[in-house]
Amino acid sequence: MNYTSIKEIDSLKKWVTQALKIKKNPLKNQKLGKNKTLGMLFFNSSLRTRLSTQKAALNLGMNVMVMNFTSEGWTLEFEDGAIMNQGASEHIKEAAEVVSQYCDIIAIRAFAGLVDKEKDNAETVMSGFLKYATVPVLNMESATGHPLQSLADAITMEEHKTKHRPKVVLSWAPHPRALPQAVPNSFVEMMQLQTEMDFVITHPEGYELNPEITKDSKIEYDQDKAFENADFIYAKNWSNYKEYGKITNSDPNWTITAEKMKLTNNAKFMHCLPVRRNVIVTDEVIDSENSIVIEQANNRTYSAQLVLQKILKKLEKRK
Amino acid sequence: MNYTSIKEIDSLKKWVTQALKIKKNPLKNQKLGKNKTLGMLFFNSSLRTRLSTQKAALNLGMNVMVMNFTSEGWTLEFEDGAIMNQGASEHIKEAAEVVSQYCDIIAIRAFAGLVDKEKDNAETVMSGFLKYATVPVLNMESATGHPLQSLADAITMEEHKTKHRPKVVLSWAPHPRALPQAVPNSFVEMMQLQTEMDFVITHPEGYELNPEITKDSKIEYDQDKAFENADFIYAKNWSNYKEYGKITNSDPNWTITAEKMKLTNNAKFMHCLPVRRNVIVTDEVIDSENSIVIEQANNRTYSAQLVLQKILKKLEKRK
Amino acid sequence: MNYTSIKEIDSLKKWVTQALKIKKNPLKNQKLGKNKTLGMLFFNSSLRTRLSTQKAALNLGMNVMVMNFTSEGWTLEFEDGAIMNQGASEHIKEAAEVVSQYCDIIAIRAFAGLVDKEKDNAETVMSGFLKYATVPVLNMESATGHPLQSLADAITMEEHKTKHRPKVVLSWAPHPRALPQAVPNSFVEMMQLQTEMDFVITHPEGYELNPEITKDSKIEYDQDKAFENADFIYAKNWSNYKEYGKITNSDPNWTITAEKMKLTNNAKFMHCLPVRRNVIVTDEVIDSENSIVIEQANNRTYSAQLVLQKILKKLEKRK
Repeated sequence: MNYTSIKEIDSLKKWVTQALKIKKNPLKNQKLGKNKTLGMLFFNSSLRTRLSTQKAALNLGMNVMVMNFTSEGWTLEFEDGAIMNQGASEHIKEAAEVVSQYCDIIAIRAFAGLVDKEKDNAETVMSGFLKYATVPVLNMESATGHPLQSLADAITMEEHKTKHRPKVVLSWAPHPRALPQAVPNSFVEMMQLQTEMDFVITHPEGYELNPEITKDSKIEYDQDKAFENADFIYAKNWSNYKEYGKITNSDPNWTITAEKMKLTNNAKFMHCLPVRRNVIVTDEVIDSENSIVIEQANNRTYSAQLVLQKILKKLEKRK
Repeated sequence: MNYTSIKEIDSLKKWVTQALKIKKNPLKNQKLGKNKTLGMLFFNSSLRTRLSTQKAALNLGMNVMVMNFTSEGWTLEFEDGAIMNQGASEHIKEAAEVVSQYCDIIAIRAFAGLVDKEKDNAETVMSGFLKYATVPVLNMESATGHPLQSLADAITMEEHKTKHRPKVVLSWAPHPRALPQAVPNSFVEMMQLQTEMDFVITHPEGYELNPEITKDSKIEYDQDKAFENADFIYAKNWSNYKEYGKITNSDPNWTITAEKMKLTNNAKFMHCLPVRRNVIVTDEVIDSENSIVIEQANNRTYSAQLVLQKILKKLEKRK
Repeated sequence: MNYTSIKEIDSLKKWVTQALKIKKNPLKNQKLGKNKTLGMLFFNSSLRTRLSTQKAALNLGMNVMVMNFTSEGWTLEFEDGAIMNQGASEHIKEAAEVVSQYCDIIAIRAFAGLVDKEKDNAETVMSGFLKYATVPVLNMESATGHPLQSLADAITMEEHKTKHRPKVVLSWAPHPRALPQAVPNSFVEMMQLQTEMDFVITHPEGYELNPEITKDSKIEYDQDKAFENADFIYAKNWSNYKEYGKITNSDPNWTITAEKMKLTNNAKFMHCLPVRRNVIVTDEVIDSENSIVIEQANNRTYSAQLVLQKILKKLEKRK
């Protein structure tokens, strides 16, 4: 069992219930991970993912080996058949097969490059590990998805919803740097699994996410209209998908303000963090009682722990 | 309970006695830290602090998560109300609150920048964590203090003193690079808690430390005179505090030599390390039997372990 | 007991047998390393060594502290008597003595600089630690040797040999960057301990390894001839030893191809990894059934575990 995409969740409802059970008693399964090793390979920076995934593994009694791949290891080649007389010292085939021998589970973080859409959509790094690793692979944010984040988001919404069928809005917001679409992609995919929530995506025209991901999810270009009656506002910037990796809009009118929050049904404010204050969202909103960004980050531990637990149980059965 | 400054020591005598007890049996409290996690966040390089604090935590049975914040995480913004459209990706508020959810204790290392005195005195990083963290914070050397070092120094002097009221001299010495005042500051503060030691600071005129720290501690500008009858010579460079962060003196006559040590009462030689040989101190002195710099570094483990132990015990009571 | 060179193996046959026993039951000695700490200090990049040595220590129940010395610590001075007013902040004497107080075993990785042959042959870093450390030292690849790798190679050959007296060929192959001689050096030294194997080294004329290491090992400049009847082909690039650190040959005819493998006795293909595909060896060869490079990397865990186990047992006796 891998966990590289929201698609691997068979029943979101069940998973959320299980995660909330873990949260109540996180040390209950401390024997499950005994003598099992999680290898965490980072190709990019990480704070929450780094620490929460590690914490989840420790809660399960696992050993953890952390490695910043690019600075501490070797540059990898991902193309099959490459004549490796340039920069890369090692092929993903060897790297993945070798690391699989030292670890029971491999967790990978490898962002989109935002230069070559095709390459990012092909998930070069993640696919390479999936193809060649001989142990389960965990996605700690890849070029096009961040399923541990979105699972934590689902857990958080379950905890904070106040009515049967809440309205959830994913709102684009401006940002000074070009960011990947991984978080909104997985959020959209997760929302598509929600059976008792209404979902709207709002962003400037031209900022459409990959239509193969959004499918028939509702898009509303008027942010104010989208916010009406919303119970959850999930803010996130992403760079342009059509004009790939470009910033074609930095309109400060899309910043989430207290005024805009007034349009909602006293909505909770969410963001995956790190967040640019007073660019994505004003201090007033993120510091308000309705902001649940810290709880969201906390649930990263239980999201990771649920997934690790599921993988460990499958590994146990295999014996 | 935090440990960010020498001021948090209620009774230095008691603390030193307790640390020496830990040193005799460092694994005695291995259950105290079980399922507790120490998060070590480094904004600067570290050898002794990195390994000794980690070792102390392991001796207590804790889990340790180490993170080099600047290279592995995100650049932090420390100013409240900042419009974050520049370099920093995350505000200290979120960072500290989030990490507090994954760790039971957070240890921070963040040196002085030595450019802006006011900013350094405000302890931007440490204060930010103190303000927003919801778990105890441990100072692994901040802009203006290094209290784990000075506690280790007190332990070391207790072990090596040979008479009732020893004379301790903190001596400035030259160095090719501008260094912070953190170590001498905390050493001075620790010495001010010593009731049975005489204390003299010696340095070139103009190299006074922050007078709010030195208070009425004795200053002697004539190094030779200061060394007379000394039982401990604690050498350390610091950059100019008045002409903030500048090197205004690099007089090799301030180097600690065997000749100068002859002026003392067969004094022990101390330094917090890393030390520039033949600049701060000659090989002859640091390699002599009277040099106790290695023992000093060893006591870093017990200094950290005492503090962690105290924090863990308070956490336990809180339950 | 240190393990810094193949010379420290008293009986290769015994060691290989013991390692294979560990491989069958790697968690058997989990109590041996309890409360013992392995400090892993990296002066260079590492993937296999980093993870396999760590895994070996975890299998033995040890605590592990990993440190990238150059980026996370201080630049070291290795010369005795140096006036340290330049780049280096700390002398190896203090560094090694201090780290010895926090760790029960110190493992070091420090590559050849390939600029100054004398300095590399003097093993500046490794010798410094050996001279000043007060605990056992483990070589995780030094300027002139990689004995954990060669021990793993011996284990792998033992598992894959199909006849009593196999022929083993160490073959140079081209590479775009200048590489150290550490791996071939230790491989040669290990092969000299093999009593039931025939050994030939093949490389272009002028690419002789240090004759003090190769001694009377057979050298054959004709690669084709060397491959005849070979049972193991061990490919490895190294830079020129005479014209020290230079690349004086990059002849693609030395690449290991399927055609060349046909000259052998259905030989197994070996390489220490990372390997440049289609430069050192063609995809066809490394992807063939006869390639045992992944098994080789797997045996790095058992090679390290055997050595750590031996050291831990000696430490225990000392008590």
